[in-house]
Amino acid sequence: MRHAVFPGGARFRPELCLGVAEACGDAHPLVAEAAAVSIELLHCASLVYDDLPCFDDAPIRRGHAAVHVAHGEELAILAGNALIVLSFDSLARAGAAQPQLLPGLLRVIARGVGSPSGICAGQAWESDTPPELGVYHRAKTGALFESAIIAGAIAGGGDPMQWSGLGYRLGEAYQIADDLRDAYGRAELLGKPVGQDAVHARPSAVHELGMNGAVQRMSDLCDEVLGRLPACDGRQDLIALIRGWSQKLLPHPRQTAATAMSATS
Amino acid sequence: MRHAVFPGGARFRPELCLGVAEACGDAHPLVAEAAAVSIELLHCASLVYDDLPCFDDAPIRRGHAAVHVAHGEELAILAGNALIVLSFDSLARAGAAQPQLLPGLLRVIARGVGSPSGICAGQAWESDTPPELGVYHRAKTGALFESAIIAGAIAGGGDPMQWSGLGYRLGEAYQIADDLRDAYGRAELLGKPVGQDAVHARPSAVHELGMNGAVQRMSDLCDEVLGRLPACDGRQDLIALIRGWSQKLLPHPRQTAATAMSATS
Repeated sequence: MRHAVFPGGARFRPELCLGVAEACGDAHPLVAEAAAVSIELLHCASLVYDDLPCFDDAPIRRGHAAVHVAHGEELAILAGNALIVLSFDSLARAGAAQPQLLPGLLRVIARGVGSPSGICAGQAWESDTPPELGVYHRAKTGALFESAIIAGAIAGGGDPMQWSGLGYRLGEAYQIADDLRDAYGRAELLGKPVGQDAVHARPSAVHELGMNGAVQRMSDLCDEVLGRLPACDGRQDLIALIRGWSQKLLPHPRQTAATAMSATS
Repeated sequence: MRHAVFPGGARFRPELCLGVAEACGDAHPLVAEAAAVSIELLHCASLVYDDLPCFDDAPIRRGHAAVHVAHGEELAILAGNALIVLSFDSLARAGAAQPQLLPGLLRVIARGVGSPSGICAGQAWESDTPPELGVYHRAKTGALFESAIIAGAIAGGGDPMQWSGLGYRLGEAYQIADDLRDAYGRAELLGKPVGQDAVHARPSAVHELGMNGAVQRMSDLCDEVLGRLPACDGRQDLIALIRGWSQKLLPHPRQTAATAMSATS
């Protein structure tokens, strides 16, 4: 379980959850923290499964051996299971002081990872009939971003309805960036194998829109999210947070060009 | 997910949860029902993983194809994941009317399945250094029985402390019965392969205590549980429920004798 969670990746989702909670007034900081942790644990669990032999069969994650490579497939699956349980358990522990928040938080987080619209559904579509790309991205990535934002709003004391839908757009932008990095990034910089979408014949924004189209779509989505952020005290900080990511997420222009050149040479 | 849950097995754990809730006065019947469902969904998920190629590699469960045989290993793993999520989600939904019960229920159920003392830990010990048999049984089976009883007490309005420890004993009895059936039962009657403990060199009560010793230990545990049931209105019904199981669980004497004979002939 420790191997799956540390060293961490970018921790985008928990940062987003905490960022929204702070923007909303941070009414219950310990609950916001627990929600952020819960979401990151679920994300980490999803990566353990992603890397398994029957899915991506990826030996490397975050620059280290994938969990199943280091500890065997059995312990990887069990660690993933136990991380899901720990996610809800730690939320329950922190939520004991504010139990009225728990039903909403649990449900919104479960929706991001379960079936029929969360990560499990998105991942299942990789092994099954691929639906329209947007639907697949919403489930595979968008749903947990949406959970992060809504959970942040609930824990921060905001109105979750006002924040609805933003996470799906941000998640779609993130997934497009991920597709771009998979197509044009370099494994040694990303700490994971590249070219997996093509290998597994998975739906990819790069395949569908081309490189320039994908970059444009990602940029449009981020602009749309920034334009729709609800009025709140912490709005400027949140804009800076989201802008910072979208720049960090795109493969570096020089790196992209070099990889594209070597691919055509 | 449906394939993993239906047709059901004996549904011991949810029956136990509901039985205890009723014995305690059934203060919150919808919450008790949700807790029972939550526990059964987690149990069903654990069976999906149990049967996977990297664990028992069992093709048959409850007389039907195991989930990974019918739907592939990828969808089996995802169905298991989604069942864990659904378990907590459905508890959150039903608990929305009584949110003060949620922290306790969630924590007690999580303890039964997660790490370091629930099913994930017990299952991990099958792939790792086997500890003392009792510790392994407590985690693999006892912990979720304990969850079922404590959750029933919480939802029923009883004092969970008074019910503490009974589930571990009942779970140990159940695990011994399972070991006996694995050693002496017949696959066509059980709806799953037998002889798995020997094949996988797993700790087994039969291996440790012999057949008669295992039957005696199981009977002692059940008696101990019945003797320790807290005073409550539904005590007699609960005694009948537990007595009924312990009889149902043991392999039929004639069947046991026939299998033992054929094994030595």
